[in-house]
Amino acid sequence: MLSLNEVNYFLNPRSVVLIGVTTRTGPEAYNSLEQVLKTGFNGRIYAVNPKGGEVLGQTLYRSVLELPEAVDLAVISTPRTAVVKVVKDCVLKGIKAVIVVTQGFADGDKEGQVMQAELGKIIQGTGTRLIGPNTIGVVNTFVDFHTSFLDFHRQKNNCCMISQSGIFLLGSADFTAGLGLGIDLGNAADIEISDLLEYLGNDPQIKVINLHIEGIKNGRRFMELARKTGCKKPVFCLKTGRSEAGAKAAISHSGSLAGEDHVFETAFKQSGLIRVQDVEEMRIFNKTFLTYQSIPGQRIAVLTISGGAGIATADAMSNYGLKLAQFSPSTVNRLKEVFPDWMEVINPADIWPAGMIHGYHHIYSLSLEIVLNDPRVDAVFCVSPAYLHPAQDKLLNITDLLNQAAANHPEKPVAVWVYGPYRQEFAAILEKPGHIIAYHSPERAMAALGALYRYHQQIKPALENPEKNEPFIVFNEQKINRVKRIFYTARNQNKATINFPELEEIFQAYDIPIVSTKVAYNLIEALAAAEEIGYPVVMKVLSPEVTHKSDLGGVYLNLNSPEAVENAFKKIKALELNQELKIPVLGVLIQPYITDPDSIEIILGSKKDPVFGPVLVYGLGGIYTELFKDVAFRIAPINRTQALAMIKETRSYQLLLGFRGKPPLDIEALVSSLLSLGQIVVNHPEIQELDLNPLLVRPKGVLALDARLSIA
Amino acid sequence: MLSLNEVNYFLNPRSVVLIGVTTRTGPEAYNSLEQVLKTGFNGRIYAVNPKGGEVLGQTLYRSVLELPEAVDLAVISTPRTAVVKVVKDCVLKGIKAVIVVTQGFADGDKEGQVMQAELGKIIQGTGTRLIGPNTIGVVNTFVDFHTSFLDFHRQKNNCCMISQSGIFLLGSADFTAGLGLGIDLGNAADIEISDLLEYLGNDPQIKVINLHIEGIKNGRRFMELARKTGCKKPVFCLKTGRSEAGAKAAISHSGSLAGEDHVFETAFKQSGLIRVQDVEEMRIFNKTFLTYQSIPGQRIAVLTISGGAGIATADAMSNYGLKLAQFSPSTVNRLKEVFPDWMEVINPADIWPAGMIHGYHHIYSLSLEIVLNDPRVDAVFCVSPAYLHPAQDKLLNITDLLNQAAANHPEKPVAVWVYGPYRQEFAAILEKPGHIIAYHSPERAMAALGALYRYHQQIKPALENPEKNEPFIVFNEQKINRVKRIFYTARNQNKATINFPELEEIFQAYDIPIVSTKVAYNLIEALAAAEEIGYPVVMKVLSPEVTHKSDLGGVYLNLNSPEAVENAFKKIKALELNQELKIPVLGVLIQPYITDPDSIEIILGSKKDPVFGPVLVYGLGGIYTELFKDVAFRIAPINRTQALAMIKETRSYQLLLGFRGKPPLDIEALVSSLLSLGQIVVNHPEIQELDLNPLLVRPKGVLALDARLSIA
Repeated sequence: MLSLNEVNYFLNPRSVVLIGVTTRTGPEAYNSLEQVLKTGFNGRIYAVNPKGGEVLGQTLYRSVLELPEAVDLAVISTPRTAVVKVVKDCVLKGIKAVIVVTQGFADGDKEGQVMQAELGKIIQGTGTRLIGPNTIGVVNTFVDFHTSFLDFHRQKNNCCMISQSGIFLLGSADFTAGLGLGIDLGNAADIEISDLLEYLGNDPQIKVINLHIEGIKNGRRFMELARKTGCKKPVFCLKTGRSEAGAKAAISHSGSLAGEDHVFETAFKQSGLIRVQDVEEMRIFNKTFLTYQSIPGQRIAVLTISGGAGIATADAMSNYGLKLAQFSPSTVNRLKEVFPDWMEVINPADIWPAGMIHGYHHIYSLSLEIVLNDPRVDAVFCVSPAYLHPAQDKLLNITDLLNQAAANHPEKPVAVWVYGPYRQEFAAILEKPGHIIAYHSPERAMAALGALYRYHQQIKPALENPEKNEPFIVFNEQKINRVKRIFYTARNQNKATINFPELEEIFQAYDIPIVSTKVAYNLIEALAAAEEIGYPVVMKVLSPEVTHKSDLGGVYLNLNSPEAVENAFKKIKALELNQELKIPVLGVLIQPYITDPDSIEIILGSKKDPVFGPVLVYGLGGIYTELFKDVAFRIAPINRTQALAMIKETRSYQLLLGFRGKPPLDIEALVSSLLSLGQIVVNHPEIQELDLNPLLVRPKGVLALDARLSIA
Repeated sequence: MLSLNEVNYFLNPRSVVLIGVTTRTGPEAYNSLEQVLKTGFNGRIYAVNPKGGEVLGQTLYRSVLELPEAVDLAVISTPRTAVVKVVKDCVLKGIKAVIVVTQGFADGDKEGQVMQAELGKIIQGTGTRLIGPNTIGVVNTFVDFHTSFLDFHRQKNNCCMISQSGIFLLGSADFTAGLGLGIDLGNAADIEISDLLEYLGNDPQIKVINLHIEGIKNGRRFMELARKTGCKKPVFCLKTGRSEAGAKAAISHSGSLAGEDHVFETAFKQSGLIRVQDVEEMRIFNKTFLTYQSIPGQRIAVLTISGGAGIATADAMSNYGLKLAQFSPSTVNRLKEVFPDWMEVINPADIWPAGMIHGYHHIYSLSLEIVLNDPRVDAVFCVSPAYLHPAQDKLLNITDLLNQAAANHPEKPVAVWVYGPYRQEFAAILEKPGHIIAYHSPERAMAALGALYRYHQQIKPALENPEKNEPFIVFNEQKINRVKRIFYTARNQNKATINFPELEEIFQAYDIPIVSTKVAYNLIEALAAAEEIGYPVVMKVLSPEVTHKSDLGGVYLNLNSPEAVENAFKKIKALELNQELKIPVLGVLIQPYITDPDSIEIILGSKKDPVFGPVLVYGLGGIYTELFKDVAFRIAPINRTQALAMIKETRSYQLLLGFRGKPPLDIEALVSSLLSLGQIVVNHPEIQELDLNPLLVRPKGVLALDARLSIA
């Protein structure tokens, strides 16, 4: 986490040194000194070039060590082989903030990766912090300071952008409709997103935060900070490298491991981050959130000049969690007075026929006022054409009345879809006073208003009031210590898996019912176990290397007699001799054979993600898990509300409620098992993967029929 | 279908009469005469107003009957109560083309609906054709003629638009980047989309056809014509009213029944129509298809100034069926020469570091030429910034070299993503010569190029070469005649369903294996049937009113003995006495009890759609059909290729191939059953719904275990 001071060294320095400044100037010189001077930066400026001399009226110091002061910020754009030495000098000089612009580190070859690692070591414990390498640095439009070696048009607004690519700062007028603060983290060798979130959350100049993410290092820290920030202001995420091809390219770009996209998706949701799907959505969401303070609900009134446009809007709405408002009777009655007799008053309200009778401006203004005052309406969406240039358009130019109405009703968004050859000219007029966004399609508009609704009415309240009254379950400490010893022993013995009977003990400690399982190493033991359990029984191969036991002929169900047990035992032992499979058979597991036509099979599992740690998975079991991939993920641990939400996310929920004549199943017991699983994987970080598959969910209780656990 | 002459009456008339012209002029007068005069239309113009007099230098005739000639086109915008009479006069006068602008017909109240029906009757058999009511009429920018009462900026291009809403003509510069021909069908009381497709397909001025569809009348005719047109040029479809709310609004707008969206989706796919998701996609697709002649394949080279942008592009690509090109070795080698040592040559190719060394323009031009000449590259996507105004940007403005390269390589699209504050200015320069489209996001670009690939390399070839060598199966004519008699009898007896034993006969006639089923009306018959079939048997209730038999306790499986049969029979009979269910029990069905752990259960069905007729459905059976809705649809009949495609569309295909150790199943037999089903529902239009559920697909053969058939 960066302190206020540390951030100010980067974003608002009193003095800056530009290291590696060329004596050439002009566009192809990439001379960052030239750019800083152009902005009218009013701090002290120094430049360094080992050859010395002078450029643009500035002395070129031969080394940063020769500077008369320890400046706030150093910006390094030397050749990459010089960077390590220069950063050492900066540390020596006591400079606290360093930006490394140079490319060819983790984004390059092996040598570059080694140099990047060295940069990390150099600054460690020195108090010097570093942005980059492979960055254009920072932009602060509030004081007009930036470190880019490229000139670019800067448009000020109240959003900020943390990115891993310079284009999001240089192109910010496009991507985020302007910029307040921008930080390009590049390869993020030192400073990463999490370090900046607290500062940006507290900065009153910043109303919206944008993150362009290629990869993250510590997922859990990021989530925690994102949650805190999300209480204060909306955080938009553009995650790139989501596809296989994109992820491959990300490694070459910033050395980032893009990670599994569904895990990021889950992490974003759990932290209240708003994912934007593309750069266009990012721009539109920024404009929307910077313009509309909030939206009181999801009920949208649509005023349209065209029935066809109203239908398109209704279609779009249904994709983004918004609803057509049901007008109050008084609204209907007031509109009826001006609508032609043959026309029903509905929402979307096509006001064109009324406009032709009573005058278009009059009717638009009147209807807008009526629906804005309707308590059953939370926002108004106006469809308005741009068939002629606004200056020429005497008939359909209603920009004034829209702007007036929007200014009078800051409590409800007035949003506009403006279409036609002059839509950009109309949009400029509508957006100028700062009360309206003029969208270019109903889909984009509804996506943005839907996000506004979700943030203000769902995400923010949820982040502000986490389910505090849900204590984590307390498990028997003695039993948990015993579990810890199981892992300790397994680690010491370099085991890759934990199997029965220890497995049973682990689940028992965490109150997850698992079928009683006996281990037998020879036929006599197997027969004795079957006798003790009572026929019919199930026999399964006990092997450290088998995951899909049944696929390999390692599972025998419904064994009714000692003969059947003997037969199965022989077959399982024979697996060892199979030259193709080469399965080491340690012994067999004997369990009671349980069938229950009223129950369903569920899979519960956890897998350690390199970025976010253990990720829980829940889904319908059997072949349908693989076939339909109808599963829900959460980063562990989870609370009761989240566990239930996971279950409801999948189609299994319908089965659990009792499907087509079947009895309802024990959802409460299932939730408890999910909570326990979340605790197990958090308490025992050795676990790499853990599956309960299948877990039988019954009308009363649950019962795991098999389990699998591997350690890291 | 409209003849060339008939279309010309509407789109290119030699003379036109405007009926219902007001004496007022100016914007709020909606005086279409004023608009027609403004365009400089060079045909003869007449105007009608019952009050007579003069306006804008034109005589106002009191009635169309007073005109000195039978004009080519009449445009009616009288009050709605006058329309019927006026249309009668037009017919009387011998006018062949009538546009009714007036609103308040099927888009209004009951009275309006009656009047619309009357309009249809008036013109029937007269040779007079009608567009509207509730329309702005037509636009022809090639001769600058239009019938709109609103003034609007017209931008000429080579697309056409058939819509059900005037905004798509008036706003065409936005929606389709311009317009050649436009027809607003309004409520489509007479002329509908299908009537115009052949003409537009043959018009050499038109390169792209757009359809805005709220509803369609004859789905099959539309599909057939769309297929023929799709061979000649791409047809884009914007279907509105796809959501429940939107569909409701469509009824009020044009009186259209929006229909079930998944049926439209299927029909569009089967006819080679390209569905556009929103108005923005429509504009971008039109621009793309009007600019790029074709695209030879799906392998895209990406040249980028920013690694981050390359990653975003790779992500976008994977959503739209395009692939990152794998550069040829010679391309890699030639780029390696100019790339810095530390940098690998990959696609997306980040040319920025090379540009910093050798000059940006030089490197961009060089790399572009190299990749355009690579035989493993089908199109090049260039990421290019717009940080400064193009006139000011000496460094990064590469518009000239991009335009030059694109002009030199018409065989491969050169597409650009231009981003930043001046993207619109750059885009205008890039698009002016007509060789490049400058997209505003990689997602939109890839969606458009993906559609270009699909149309030219998949849709068009498939439409040109329908699977001719796939003869429809020939069934025994005698058997089919027997089936026809079954339906004839059922209709005569006013039956709502057909049940066993006739059901069995129908499927046998069409070679769909169905389990041998005996009908028993009393216990003695039931016992005899069981004896004849051999134990164990299944007993099911025979009732005209039961669909989910098993949910109501109407199915007994695995009956092993006469006692079990007796027991089941009594229970089924008892259903009749159940006061809540009130099921008329006609008798019982007795079938052999068949289980087969190696087989899977499929559901095959057909349902008659009001627009498109019988629609086939295929999906995984059992509770999973309802739970996962993993089903595929096709309008019947289908050929072998389509049947297989249906199966592959669902997850069941993996099971059929043999899933996790199970044997592969008889896909060939399943395909045959699907083809047969398609034939049944086409041959016997009485069928309203028909289900085979479950159909057991086995390692060898298929077997239907139950069936259901209802008639219209």
